[in-house]
Amino acid sequence: MSKVVTFGEVLMRLSPSENRKLRQSHQLEFFFGGTEMNVAASLVNFEMRVQQVTAVSKDFVGDSAIAAMRHLGIEVSTVTKVDHPLGLYFLEIGAGMRPSQISYNRLNAAFANIDPDTINWEEILEDGSYFHWTGITPGISEAAYRTLRNGLEIAQKKGITVTADPSYRSNLWKYGKDGQQVLAELTGLSNIFIGGVNEINEILKTDFEFTENGFVEASKRLINTYPSIEKVFDKVRTGVSASWQKIYAQAWTGTEYITTVELEISNVIDRIGTGDAYAAGIIYGLKNYEDQKTLEFANAACALKHTILGDNNLVKVNDVLEILEGNTRGRIKR
Amino acid sequence: MSKVVTFGEVLMRLSPSENRKLRQSHQLEFFFGGTEMNVAASLVNFEMRVQQVTAVSKDFVGDSAIAAMRHLGIEVSTVTKVDHPLGLYFLEIGAGMRPSQISYNRLNAAFANIDPDTINWEEILEDGSYFHWTGITPGISEAAYRTLRNGLEIAQKKGITVTADPSYRSNLWKYGKDGQQVLAELTGLSNIFIGGVNEINEILKTDFEFTENGFVEASKRLINTYPSIEKVFDKVRTGVSASWQKIYAQAWTGTEYITTVELEISNVIDRIGTGDAYAAGIIYGLKNYEDQKTLEFANAACALKHTILGDNNLVKVNDVLEILEGNTRGRIKR
Amino acid sequence: MSKVVTFGEVLMRLSPSENRKLRQSHQLEFFFGGTEMNVAASLVNFEMRVQQVTAVSKDFVGDSAIAAMRHLGIEVSTVTKVDHPLGLYFLEIGAGMRPSQISYNRLNAAFANIDPDTINWEEILEDGSYFHWTGITPGISEAAYRTLRNGLEIAQKKGITVTADPSYRSNLWKYGKDGQQVLAELTGLSNIFIGGVNEINEILKTDFEFTENGFVEASKRLINTYPSIEKVFDKVRTGVSASWQKIYAQAWTGTEYITTVELEISNVIDRIGTGDAYAAGIIYGLKNYEDQKTLEFANAACALKHTILGDNNLVKVNDVLEILEGNTRGRIKR
Amino acid sequence: MSKVVTFGEVLMRLSPSENRKLRQSHQLEFFFGGTEMNVAASLVNFEMRVQQVTAVSKDFVGDSAIAAMRHLGIEVSTVTKVDHPLGLYFLEIGAGMRPSQISYNRLNAAFANIDPDTINWEEILEDGSYFHWTGITPGISEAAYRTLRNGLEIAQKKGITVTADPSYRSNLWKYGKDGQQVLAELTGLSNIFIGGVNEINEILKTDFEFTENGFVEASKRLINTYPSIEKVFDKVRTGVSASWQKIYAQAWTGTEYITTVELEISNVIDRIGTGDAYAAGIIYGLKNYEDQKTLEFANAACALKHTILGDNNLVKVNDVLEILEGNTRGRIKR
Amino acid sequence: MSKVVTFGEVLMRLSPSENRKLRQSHQLEFFFGGTEMNVAASLVNFEMRVQQVTAVSKDFVGDSAIAAMRHLGIEVSTVTKVDHPLGLYFLEIGAGMRPSQISYNRLNAAFANIDPDTINWEEILEDGSYFHWTGITPGISEAAYRTLRNGLEIAQKKGITVTADPSYRSNLWKYGKDGQQVLAELTGLSNIFIGGVNEINEILKTDFEFTENGFVEASKRLINTYPSIEKVFDKVRTGVSASWQKIYAQAWTGTEYITTVELEISNVIDRIGTGDAYAAGIIYGLKNYEDQKTLEFANAACALKHTILGDNNLVKVNDVLEILEGNTRGRIKR
Amino acid sequence: MSKVVTFGEVLMRLSPSENRKLRQSHQLEFFFGGTEMNVAASLVNFEMRVQQVTAVSKDFVGDSAIAAMRHLGIEVSTVTKVDHPLGLYFLEIGAGMRPSQISYNRLNAAFANIDPDTINWEEILEDGSYFHWTGITPGISEAAYRTLRNGLEIAQKKGITVTADPSYRSNLWKYGKDGQQVLAELTGLSNIFIGGVNEINEILKTDFEFTENGFVEASKRLINTYPSIEKVFDKVRTGVSASWQKIYAQAWTGTEYITTVELEISNVIDRIGTGDAYAAGIIYGLKNYEDQKTLEFANAACALKHTILGDNNLVKVNDVLEILEGNTRGRIKR
Repeated sequence: MSKVVTFGEVLMRLSPSENRKLRQSHQLEFFFGGTEMNVAASLVNFEMRVQQVTAVSKDFVGDSAIAAMRHLGIEVSTVTKVDHPLGLYFLEIGAGMRPSQISYNRLNAAFANIDPDTINWEEILEDGSYFHWTGITPGISEAAYRTLRNGLEIAQKKGITVTADPSYRSNLWKYGKDGQQVLAELTGLSNIFIGGVNEINEILKTDFEFTENGFVEASKRLINTYPSIEKVFDKVRTGVSASWQKIYAQAWTGTEYITTVELEISNVIDRIGTGDAYAAGIIYGLKNYEDQKTLEFANAACALKHTILGDNNLVKVNDVLEILEGNTRGRIKR
Repeated sequence: MSKVVTFGEVLMRLSPSENRKLRQSHQLEFFFGGTEMNVAASLVNFEMRVQQVTAVSKDFVGDSAIAAMRHLGIEVSTVTKVDHPLGLYFLEIGAGMRPSQISYNRLNAAFANIDPDTINWEEILEDGSYFHWTGITPGISEAAYRTLRNGLEIAQKKGITVTADPSYRSNLWKYGKDGQQVLAELTGLSNIFIGGVNEINEILKTDFEFTENGFVEASKRLINTYPSIEKVFDKVRTGVSASWQKIYAQAWTGTEYITTVELEISNVIDRIGTGDAYAAGIIYGLKNYEDQKTLEFANAACALKHTILGDNNLVKVNDVLEILEGNTRGRIKR
Repeated sequence: MSKVVTFGEVLMRLSPSENRKLRQSHQLEFFFGGTEMNVAASLVNFEMRVQQVTAVSKDFVGDSAIAAMRHLGIEVSTVTKVDHPLGLYFLEIGAGMRPSQISYNRLNAAFANIDPDTINWEEILEDGSYFHWTGITPGISEAAYRTLRNGLEIAQKKGITVTADPSYRSNLWKYGKDGQQVLAELTGLSNIFIGGVNEINEILKTDFEFTENGFVEASKRLINTYPSIEKVFDKVRTGVSASWQKIYAQAWTGTEYITTVELEISNVIDRIGTGDAYAAGIIYGLKNYEDQKTLEFANAACALKHTILGDNNLVKVNDVLEILEGNTRGRIKR
Repeated sequence: MSKVVTFGEVLMRLSPSENRKLRQSHQLEFFFGGTEMNVAASLVNFEMRVQQVTAVSKDFVGDSAIAAMRHLGIEVSTVTKVDHPLGLYFLEIGAGMRPSQISYNRLNAAFANIDPDTINWEEILEDGSYFHWTGITPGISEAAYRTLRNGLEIAQKKGITVTADPSYRSNLWKYGKDGQQVLAELTGLSNIFIGGVNEINEILKTDFEFTENGFVEASKRLINTYPSIEKVFDKVRTGVSASWQKIYAQAWTGTEYITTVELEISNVIDRIGTGDAYAAGIIYGLKNYEDQKTLEFANAACALKHTILGDNNLVKVNDVLEILEGNTRGRIKR
Repeated sequence: MSKVVTFGEVLMRLSPSENRKLRQSHQLEFFFGGTEMNVAASLVNFEMRVQQVTAVSKDFVGDSAIAAMRHLGIEVSTVTKVDHPLGLYFLEIGAGMRPSQISYNRLNAAFANIDPDTINWEEILEDGSYFHWTGITPGISEAAYRTLRNGLEIAQKKGITVTADPSYRSNLWKYGKDGQQVLAELTGLSNIFIGGVNEINEILKTDFEFTENGFVEASKRLINTYPSIEKVFDKVRTGVSASWQKIYAQAWTGTEYITTVELEISNVIDRIGTGDAYAAGIIYGLKNYEDQKTLEFANAACALKHTILGDNNLVKVNDVLEILEGNTRGRIKR
Repeated sequence: MSKVVTFGEVLMRLSPSENRKLRQSHQLEFFFGGTEMNVAASLVNFEMRVQQVTAVSKDFVGDSAIAAMRHLGIEVSTVTKVDHPLGLYFLEIGAGMRPSQISYNRLNAAFANIDPDTINWEEILEDGSYFHWTGITPGISEAAYRTLRNGLEIAQKKGITVTADPSYRSNLWKYGKDGQQVLAELTGLSNIFIGGVNEINEILKTDFEFTENGFVEASKRLINTYPSIEKVFDKVRTGVSASWQKIYAQAWTGTEYITTVELEISNVIDRIGTGDAYAAGIIYGLKNYEDQKTLEFANAACALKHTILGDNNLVKVNDVLEILEGNTRGRIKR
């Protein structure tokens, strides 16, 4: 079975239930997530083999993070332990016109202090087919950035398909590197670009418009600049409110513009990780479908994630395919 | 006070809260339900006298089931105890386009092993006015089927009104009998048919269309075939998603087609037992109202059940009548 | 910093979670609230200084109420303790077309037995800028009424702006006074009227219509009758269901009619205290904005309260201003 | 089956879990109890028929109280509804050397406002064998006192065995009657006295010592004074701490002093209602055993109640008999 | 790393929290366990490699069971799926002198319907060092018995050490086989006997006494009868109450009698699975220690399990060794 | 009212309920604590005025920490906000012979990054009577150390009584300073030493024995070395297990050795913060009692804290005095 390798931080998410604000609570629900682990979790549920490379804390919190990954079926043999606390974030889940709020505690955590020399990429990637990274990882610390770049270089050398989700987060990048420049550099080591006009403008310092045409032109320019990139997969979200979202997807396949129907989620259970569900859908599709079905599959996977609590998408391939077949009315399955 | 008798399995329902999937949980909420008990519960809340005939396990789980029935006000004097575990089901509650999923553990349970000879129908039905059964019961086991048929024969003999909700469930009927044939046989022992084109086609092996005309023709054919049937009450559901449902009702009164307004529930709390709430509404209406109001009452009761957690409808007659009067905006009552 | 003084009962609210009915529960969530405390809480979150005058029980329940007020930042130095239990109410939270239901236990409680002589209004109001009262307080008991009237008289004497929310609740007024007459009397000791046609008709014994014109005419008549009143601020609610509400606001500024956009909350978290959130928005606006922005601010604050669990609005000024700027799509804030 | 009649208030108990103090909580667990209902619940679990006469609130809280009684199997046909809130109490559960604390809200509640004329004692007691009362009831209100005395007079007339648990609570008796005098009067209408030196001294205004001899002399004097009293059953508690209790029982049978072994509960789950469990054990024993076994049975029932959460004892006769046979080591039962 | 293979049923355990009785609850906590899985879980925590052979249901409950095993680190590659519901049990957790009660639902469940032909013991045991079985498995069904015997025969052939915990449970053995005879047969295919006088008497139909001498003589007789047995490891429990237990261990090493200190647990958190924790301690000791330390280690592991909620022992080797070193005072570790 | 000033970190504590291990949980209970805040909370409950100087995070977590302090009644006007996450710790609560385990995340948190220049000690201490510090604070960071030393110097200058609890924690002191040397330096700026042989040996690099005599000699030597120290208050703990503790206290008053009775807590609810409860008892006693009563009071306060969940002691002066009077049997207070 072909193996997907993900590299990124595992975070503990702590949030009050019932849309409470933190100060209304005495209890927090927790989940383990993080953008790359979310992709990994999705792919395991799609019956793919996935190994996550990461570093966790050398305490019972780190042990719990590893157990949570095992629970999902993610391979954890190359998880290292570092003598710093596990990264975490607090989440106040919004509703209606009240936005969700996140507060991070990660920049001095275990993953930020990963030792690049402890990661044997040659061995890890030996039987890899896909390597997935996001723009979060290189923004965390110099060590995270260096480890990632090492991995990408070896992945490219081995002909592994690198999928990139290079979104820029302004609350990262505190260690001295320029985010825009780093993301551009790493895009040059990637093959599939998961992002849209926003991310391309960020990387190319351009100002393409947020239209179909803008997306196509931006994609072409990106591929022109970074020829390793073959395709660009984007999703477009229209939020009615924190509880009501609409999404569709679009792509530039290298030769044509394709798009999907819009899916509507009027009672959102959880917004976190929906982008990661989309990315996982793309990776699954790359391996199993042609581009149009890949895009529909990823969009439907993303839509379904809105109905799943926590950071990880726990739906199976059949659950997604049912949406593609139009079964969106939520009839009880006995 | 005229007495309603129901006969059927009491199941424990186990479901994670917060729309979680089972594997995201360490806790399960439980409710006691089962289609006939749900009807019984509704009718007690409508201030009718209801006795449920059933068999539960001879352990603390069965004791809890009986206590739950007493809590609702259902008469439990004829509940028997059998040395098998209580039937139960696991429920993952869906949301949006993700359907709810149910997994049963009932086919070797207490009710399936009921001893027909322990049920004294002559005595039970002595002061009965209504006897309600559904298509679930005869599908569980030979013993359940035989006990039910005994009861129906005596009910018909005594002139008790038999209400039938003969839906066919394909995951039952494992004990050797042909479901379609049994449901037809038992329909012949009934007076009020709660079902529509789907159920009639199943029983008559016909293929009437899912239109107003199809419903009328199917109803006429049913009554022609089984002259004990006087009226046919149906409800029509349009699911926008697992969280958003629309329902209206229609009936063939023996002489005319009647129908109701459509009610919309945009934030469904619980889908389970809504059909049973409808059936209970019909039975209450049969006793208290003419057909049009009966249909409106049942449709409104069904709509209200979507806002009540668990399997049982806990609304009172006045709650339903307020919907009929158009008070659907959920204004706070102080 | 100018100080707002509120006077009213602090109630413990007890409600089952998950929209359960009480008899489906073994646990109750509790919050401390009460219409005037809700206004106080909002204003503290808007960074105003607020002192609540009230009486609580002389037991650990009263201690908890005081701690809850301190938690919010409300000044509690003039809270007195009375040897009667704290008032409370049970709430069954509705959904869809099922209304919420409230049952009170307050009429013989601590606040109803407040001793007017223990409240030193001269001292309390020394550095006050605003005094807020509602129609609940004088309806509870003779003692509550007398204490309030004392306060209002001294407030008027000191030139403090008195904001009145004189809604009439028919389940109060059990102690012998005529509610309509008392509310009229106290309106005559007030400057800002927070209410609409309904409240004005109640007080003036008129029958103005529920139209824009009716509101303007009613407001003019009110100001004519009670010249201390300067402005009338009203909000208009359209409930689609208990879970889906629309609101907009209107005002008569003394010289012109102004109104706001309508805001829509399709997934209501909590309806209680939304009117108090509006009143607090008005008071904050009176101090900081001109009339149109005051009205928009209050309407947005009210809308946001629908997304906050419990009786108190916990949003900050910036949260409200973002709604005014059109950021209603609930985008995650990291 | 002989019927036991109990008369008394049904209270909702509200307590934080995990031995929290109220102000550390946002949630309360609730149970319905009250000393007479606790006795009723115990007796139903001992397979006796029990009818409770009481008054509850005319709202969903009162409905829930009735449903809770039905859940236990208590007959509720003579429960009346009164337009006052249901009585309740808050409980902070202590631990170790920290005592539990209770705060009541009952003196203006539904039961205090029971209408004596709505209770048809002649009919209720027609097929009664036992009538149980406690010193709480006449302390609540004049109405409660009068209703009770009516009942006792008719019970005595009918030759029903009246069991009295006439403990004096100083936080009651606010309505003008002298508690000591009333308890004495009602003891004169009783047959079995459940109490010890403390209660006898209270009623007789004596000062017998807290010794075996004191108990015997006090019992003799009591029977001398109130010849309707036949036997005196007492229990003696030694608290090591709130979490560790020891109990034994003693009785004066009219002719001899008897006593039991001491039972030890080193991990108390719930202290509330243990005295009521004892009283129920006495009543069950009166009907089924001779005095020594009655005393042992009641003591063991009381001990077991310490292991049951809530106010009601939920153990069965066999559970108690196992303790009498020495099976106190808590071996798992499969 | 040498591999331990376990074979047995995975059960879902459902129990109310807070020592509640089922009928006092609306929620159940659940854990996955089962005697062999408990041993497996312990051994993984001791850093051994463990593979469990079992069959689970083909639904989301079975998926959750597998995920729970993965969470613990148990290898699940040979878990099969069967179209029957997962076995489960309800547990009411006792306290003090109230015993815990268990009610099973397992005899028609997935594991009972395992297909012996789907288990490739040759392959599974290829790199096995230990094979652990208990007396539960052959009591469930003919299929379970046959699958187990197949495995034991191949294990013996391969020279794998077979550890047997052949306790007899009278509520099993419903499928026709004689339990005593089967356990004797399978003991003949085993090398390490984990049990004492009780189990030996059962198997040999003897009546050795429950004394040190009785244990030694019974062990000798057992080894004489079944020469494959090398050693006998027993534990002796003295229950003060359900909440307070004392345990020590004894063994016949084939040449001498050894015993341990007694450990005392005065605040038991969970009694379930303590025997399995002991068995796991023995297996770990067999591989790493001489007999005396093995016995001490197993006794301490068993003691520690009493402090862990759920069926599985989650302590590590170091946690156990600390007890051996006398650190039993529960000092906080920072 | 004389004011106590405390200076130290406010930590969020996160722990699974029911003695679970983290990896058995999906939910965490949280409390705000920290050794100095615990002392502050105790003293406020003893009706003293307390101001805490600290730094929290500039996010909703920090806001919640401040609200929690206000809830307790601690003055928060000098709490500063720093752009780093709030410090926190995870706690697995042990039981029996299983120790509790703590994992910290604090060394790069808000308090560690406090800016000494933002703390105006002159102003803060203007009306102070007591200043309390512990050995935790100077171990966190250079900034925390410097801020503390500044405060102590000014406190000494102003004649404020400085109470020191200079315990050494080896998992702190990562920023370069020598812990032993710093604690010695700061002891020289203190008046009351709360600690025993262990702490004195640490500071003086001595090796006094853990006996009464050792304590007296160590205390004398300490006072000799640091003449600002007047008295030494110590407590002695004997842990039977994590759930069962015994404590007594001893002191060197400068002129004599005094000691207390031993108190026993056989069902510990929470061990955290018991030392802080003792320190608060000492401070309260210093102000209100002579030495012997001070010691008894502090010991009883410490004992009571073992029965309170969370880090803060929530008992009142009367609760403590009752223990002194021998009321340790946990009798219910109504």
